[in-house]
Amino acid sequence: MRFSTACVVCTAAIIGQASAQTFRRLGACPTLGCIFPPDQSDFLPGQWFDIRLETHAPQNGSEVVPGYLTPDERFTFTIAKDGKQKDCQNAATYFKVDEPAIERWNFTWYEDLFAEAAKTPSMVKVASKAYRKVALYEPGNYIATLTYANGSVTQANWTVRDTKISQKAKNVIMFIGDGMTTNMITAARLIAHQSVNGKYQTRMAMDKFPVLGHSMTHSIDSFITDSANSATALYTGHKSTVNALGVYADSSPNPLDDPKIQSIAELFHEVRGGGVGIVSTAFIADATPGALTAHTRNRGQYGNVVDSFLNGITNYTWPSWNGPDVLFGGGAEQFIPSSKSFQGKDYYQEFRNKGYNVIQNNTALQAAPNSERTLGIFSVSNMAKWLDRNVYKNNTQIPKTAPDGSNAAATDQPGLKEMTLKAIDILHKRNCDKGFFLMSEAASIDKQMHVLDYDRALGELLELDDTIKATLKHLEEIGELDNTLVIVTADHGHGFDVTGSVDTKYMDAQTSDRKKRDAVGIYEQSGLSQYMVANHSAPIGSDQNLVYSAGVDFPVNWDPRYTLQSGLATFPDHRENYRVHKNGPRVPALNITGFSSNDYYVNYVDAVTGFVVNGTLPVSADQGVHSLTDVPVFAQGPCQSAFGGVYNNVDIFHNIATCLRLQREKAPK
Amino acid sequence: MRFSTACVVCTAAIIGQASAQTFRRLGACPTLGCIFPPDQSDFLPGQWFDIRLETHAPQNGSEVVPGYLTPDERFTFTIAKDGKQKDCQNAATYFKVDEPAIERWNFTWYEDLFAEAAKTPSMVKVASKAYRKVALYEPGNYIATLTYANGSVTQANWTVRDTKISQKAKNVIMFIGDGMTTNMITAARLIAHQSVNGKYQTRMAMDKFPVLGHSMTHSIDSFITDSANSATALYTGHKSTVNALGVYADSSPNPLDDPKIQSIAELFHEVRGGGVGIVSTAFIADATPGALTAHTRNRGQYGNVVDSFLNGITNYTWPSWNGPDVLFGGGAEQFIPSSKSFQGKDYYQEFRNKGYNVIQNNTALQAAPNSERTLGIFSVSNMAKWLDRNVYKNNTQIPKTAPDGSNAAATDQPGLKEMTLKAIDILHKRNCDKGFFLMSEAASIDKQMHVLDYDRALGELLELDDTIKATLKHLEEIGELDNTLVIVTADHGHGFDVTGSVDTKYMDAQTSDRKKRDAVGIYEQSGLSQYMVANHSAPIGSDQNLVYSAGVDFPVNWDPRYTLQSGLATFPDHRENYRVHKNGPRVPALNITGFSSNDYYVNYVDAVTGFVVNGTLPVSADQGVHSLTDVPVFAQGPCQSAFGGVYNNVDIFHNIATCLRLQREKAPK
Repeated sequence: MRFSTACVVCTAAIIGQASAQTFRRLGACPTLGCIFPPDQSDFLPGQWFDIRLETHAPQNGSEVVPGYLTPDERFTFTIAKDGKQKDCQNAATYFKVDEPAIERWNFTWYEDLFAEAAKTPSMVKVASKAYRKVALYEPGNYIATLTYANGSVTQANWTVRDTKISQKAKNVIMFIGDGMTTNMITAARLIAHQSVNGKYQTRMAMDKFPVLGHSMTHSIDSFITDSANSATALYTGHKSTVNALGVYADSSPNPLDDPKIQSIAELFHEVRGGGVGIVSTAFIADATPGALTAHTRNRGQYGNVVDSFLNGITNYTWPSWNGPDVLFGGGAEQFIPSSKSFQGKDYYQEFRNKGYNVIQNNTALQAAPNSERTLGIFSVSNMAKWLDRNVYKNNTQIPKTAPDGSNAAATDQPGLKEMTLKAIDILHKRNCDKGFFLMSEAASIDKQMHVLDYDRALGELLELDDTIKATLKHLEEIGELDNTLVIVTADHGHGFDVTGSVDTKYMDAQTSDRKKRDAVGIYEQSGLSQYMVANHSAPIGSDQNLVYSAGVDFPVNWDPRYTLQSGLATFPDHRENYRVHKNGPRVPALNITGFSSNDYYVNYVDAVTGFVVNGTLPVSADQGVHSLTDVPVFAQGPCQSAFGGVYNNVDIFHNIATCLRLQREKAPK
Repeated sequence: MRFSTACVVCTAAIIGQASAQTFRRLGACPTLGCIFPPDQSDFLPGQWFDIRLETHAPQNGSEVVPGYLTPDERFTFTIAKDGKQKDCQNAATYFKVDEPAIERWNFTWYEDLFAEAAKTPSMVKVASKAYRKVALYEPGNYIATLTYANGSVTQANWTVRDTKISQKAKNVIMFIGDGMTTNMITAARLIAHQSVNGKYQTRMAMDKFPVLGHSMTHSIDSFITDSANSATALYTGHKSTVNALGVYADSSPNPLDDPKIQSIAELFHEVRGGGVGIVSTAFIADATPGALTAHTRNRGQYGNVVDSFLNGITNYTWPSWNGPDVLFGGGAEQFIPSSKSFQGKDYYQEFRNKGYNVIQNNTALQAAPNSERTLGIFSVSNMAKWLDRNVYKNNTQIPKTAPDGSNAAATDQPGLKEMTLKAIDILHKRNCDKGFFLMSEAASIDKQMHVLDYDRALGELLELDDTIKATLKHLEEIGELDNTLVIVTADHGHGFDVTGSVDTKYMDAQTSDRKKRDAVGIYEQSGLSQYMVANHSAPIGSDQNLVYSAGVDFPVNWDPRYTLQSGLATFPDHRENYRVHKNGPRVPALNITGFSSNDYYVNYVDAVTGFVVNGTLPVSADQGVHSLTDVPVFAQGPCQSAFGGVYNNVDIFHNIATCLRLQREKAPK
C-alpha cells in the first residue's frame, strides 16, 4: 500500500546540489523536494499551521537532472511519531483532512551575481500540495517524509515542545526596540545618565531588570534578518525568510497562499480569550506590528495587513480573529480610502463599524474612555521622532502628515509612553479577568539607525526606556505588576558603536578632510559625556559638568561642542560631522547622477562641515543595513528565569506562550 | 583644633572650572584640590590602598585663580564615617600612620586641540601628600575631606562594600577575551557551528553558561578604556585612567609613586594563601596579565611589570608577594637580559633563583611536572595566532621569535587551551587545600581586531571557547567543577559587526571600486555561512553544505567564495576585499609619505583585490580603536547568580572577592 511503503526511507534517486551560493532556488529547500514547515521546526502543542509540499524540476542551469523535467505529481507525504517509520500515516489521514489537489506553477531564479548581471535566470517547474489548518498536539519528535520521483526522499524532523514552566503569567507586555543592540543601550546610557568618577548616579530601566539573555536573530535561510521574518520568529516560534509575515515563503506566484503559522496574538485570543494590544511608533502596517495577525510572504501588502488586524485571515480557513482591543500607531495612508487602503476602503469606518472608538491625536488619546476598543492613528507614515517632538519641534510642522488626510501637520502626536500607558489602561479595564497581551514597539530606533541619524535613534531608545520605567510604575499602581511578564528585546541589530568624542569646534576650523579627522578624541581623549549643561550649584568636588533635568533621563544638550564619534560597521557613501541633525531625520546619500535610481552618492547638503566617507555597501544602498549580532533580552515577572542565557529568538515565543499556558496537548472536541 | 574645624564643610573659596573639554588637567579631579581614591570609590573591607592628595595652583590658562599661584601646603585631610562630620579625624590619626611629608612638583597640560596645535600648554604647581598602605575595615559610607586654600573643600564619598553572598568558591578561573563583544561571539558561532534551517546543531561553550550579564567598561575619566585601566577595574574594583595598572593616576613626574590599590591576586595570596596562575597569549608584560601584580601609571614599563610578577612591589611598603605558581605567555624580550629587561637582568635566571621550573616550548609544557612553580615563555612578543598555528602554518616560521633569544623561529608554541589545562593541573596539585585563582587571557582577539584582521580575531575567540569547553570538562575530571567559579568576560569592545556576505569571485571580476561593492549580499542575499565544505554523505534533505571536522568547533574552510562582510564602526584608511589574510596578521595602513610617522594611508599591498575605504579616525591612527559597548559576562559555579543583569565592571571584582571570602572586616593583629 503506497503510503506505508513510502515510509521506508530509500536511497536518493535525485541528489540536490551541494549549493555553495548565497542565491538559493528556494530557502530551506536544498533538495528538489520541499516540505514547509521544514526540517528542525518546533511547534507549540496545538498551534495551528499549514503544510506546503513542492517538487521541483529545474529546466535549465546547474540543477537540471537528466530525464527529470516534469515535477513528480504523485509524491507521497507521511507523518511518523518518535521515529517509528513503520507506524507512519499518510498526512491527510493523520490530520483528518481531505487529500489536497495538485497545484502547478513555474518560477525563475538567478544562481549567482554573474547570472543576474547576464540576465540568465534558471527556470523551475513545480508540482505542489498544501494542507491547511492542521496541528500537532502530543509533545515529542515527528518525522515528516516526502517521497517523490521514484524514491527520492526529503525528511523534516519536527519537534512539538514540552516546555515545563511552573509559573503562569496573566498578562504579557513585550517591548520591542526595533534594531536595538547592547551597543546602543550603552551609548544612550552615556548621554542620558549622570556618571561621577565612573559610577552612574541613575540607571536605565532596562539595566534594572533581574534577568538578561541574548537572542539569535538570523533567518531560516540567511544569516541577516529583516523585521518581518524576525517578528514571525518572535510571535510564532518559527523562523522564516526576509519579508515574510507569519508564513513560510513558498515558490508560488501568490504571496497570500504561503503556509501559515498561528501567532501569539491569535493563540492568546483563541485559547485564553484575553485582550490584545498593538502599539508602534511606525506606520501600523509595518512588519513588527503586522506580523501579529498578517500572513503573507510580502510585508509590502500594507492594505492586507491592516485588514488582517480587523478581520484576521479571510482567504483560507483559519482560527477566527476578532480584532485587537488597542491598535495605536502611524500609517493613516492605509486607513484613508485610497489606492493604499485595502480594496480602496475607509478603514477608519471599517473599524467604527466593528465598534471601535477611533482617535487621531494625543488630546483625544488622553480623553478616550478605557472601556472601548480603540483605534488610534496619529500620523501619515511613521510617527514623529522623540527628538523632533521634544527638542526640534519645528520639524513636526510637515503639511499632509495629519491622520485625517487633510493638508494639516500632525502636531499633536503622542509618544510611545503615552500610547503604551493608555493601551494598558484599556486592556486592563476590558480584560481584568482574562488578562492581556501587549506588544509595544519603538520602531524608529531602527529607522533612524538606517539613515545614520544616531542622535534620533538614541532619542527613540531613551523614550523606550522611559516608557518601560513608566509601565512598571503603572503596573504596580493598578496591582498587575506581579501578574505581568515584561519582556524587552529587539528583532535584529545594526552594526553601531561609539569609539570616541569629536571636538566639533576644532573640526569646523579645519579645511581638509584629513585634518578634520584630527578632531576625533580616542581612549583618554574621549573624555566625559558632554550631553548636559554646567551646574555651578553642585557641591564642590562633584563633577560640575554633569546635570540633567531632574527625574528625566534625557540629555539636556543635544548639540554640545564635544559629541560622540559614532559609526556603523558598513554604510553607504555619506559625509560625517558627528553633529545632531537639527532640521529633521537625516538623508545621508542621494542619487545625484540621475542615470540610475540605484546609484547613490554623498548627499551634498548633509553634514556639510564634515568629511566624506565612501561607502562599503552596494552603491544601490542609500542607507545602512541590519547586522548579525545577538540582541539583548531583559525579563521581569512570572517565568523570568526562562529568559536567562543565550538562545534562539524562537525560544522567546515558546517561553512566553508556555508561561501564558497557550499550549493545547489534546485536540479540541 | 584645626582638624576638627576642618570637618565643617565650608563655602568654597576657589571654584574649579566647569570644564567642558575632553582634555583634562587631571582625571577625576575637576577642582583644584584632589583626593585619590576619588569620590564614589568602593572598597573591599580590608583592601590595602594608598591615598594621594594634591592641591593645584594653575600658573596660566583658563583656570588661573587671581592671588593663588602657590599651591596650599597647609591643607588638612580628614575621614568621617557615616557622614558624622563632627566625629571626623585627621587621616594620619585615623589610619595610625605618620603625617606624610609635603611633596612638590609642576606639570603641564593642553586645554584643548587648539592649544595643543599652537603648543601653548597650561602649567600647574602642585603640593601633595601620600598616605601609604592603609585600609578601611568596617562596611559603610565614609567621607574624606580635603580642606585647602582657606576653606576650599573637596570631598570624596567612599563606600566599603558589605556584599552578602551566601556561597563560597574554593577556586576562581577568570577567562578574559580581550576586546571580545557579543557581536564577535555571534560571528564566531556563525562560521564554526552548523545551523540547519536556522537551528544550530552545536553550541558555543559560552552559550551554555547558566548566567549572563553585561559589564560597563568606561574609564573613571573617559568613556573609552584601554586594557590597563579596565584590568585594574576587574582586579581591584577601582576604575582608573588609560595606561594605569593597579593605581590611580596622579600628576607627579614619577609613574611608580601613584596611589596603589590591592589586586585580587595580592588579596588571594595574602588572605587565603592559595595559588595564583597567570596565562596569556600576549607578551606576558602586557596590561591584562600585568595588572594582577604591577602598580604603575605607565603600562609601558614592561621590565617593572615582569619584576612585579616575581617580587611584587619593592619601592614602597606593600603586602608581601611571593610570585605566581604559573606564569605562561609570550614576551621573551623582558626575560632575556637586555635593555628591555628590568635593570638588564636575566629574568629566566631570576625565576630559577626563586625555584621556578622554566620552560620554553609546548613539548616541555606537556612534560613539565605539576608539583613545581612554572614559568613558561614561548615566544618573543605576542604568541602565534590560532589561524597561523593551525591553518597557515608557514606564518610561524619567523626568525628571532624563539624565546631563548636565538635566531630560531618559535615553531613549538602551545595554544591557550594547552597553557590553561596545564596551569590548572599545576595549581590544583600545589593548592588542593587552599584553592587557586587563574586568569587566562585570549589576548589577540583584541590585537587582531585592532588591525582589522577579523578572521584571526574570530579564530582566537573560537580558541578561547574551545579552551572553556576543555576547562569545564577537566574541572569535572579532577573533581573541582562544583568548587570553581568560572567567569568569562572582556575588558572592552571593538565596534565590530557583520552585515552580509561577499561573493569574492564576483568582486575579483569587477574593475572599479563602486562595482566591487556590488559583490556584497545583504538581508536574504547574505545567505548561509559557507565556512565549511560540502558533505555529500549527509542525509538527503539535510543541508549538505554544512559539515565540520567532527567534534572540533572551528571552520574547515577559511577561504570560501562567499565570505562575511565585516567592519568596524570607525577605522583608519584601508582597502577591503573581505578575504582571509593568508600571509599572516594584517597591516591595514602604512606611513607612505615618509614626512611624518603620524600620517597613515592605505597599505598598498593589503587586500589588493578590494576597494579603498578612507578612514574616519585621526590620520595618526594605523589601526582601529576600542569602543564603548558593554561587554558580556558569562558565569557558572558558586555565586553565579551574582553575575546576572547589568552592572559596572568593578562589581565583577567585588563579587569574585566576596565569593572567595577575601574581605577582612577587622584590622589584622
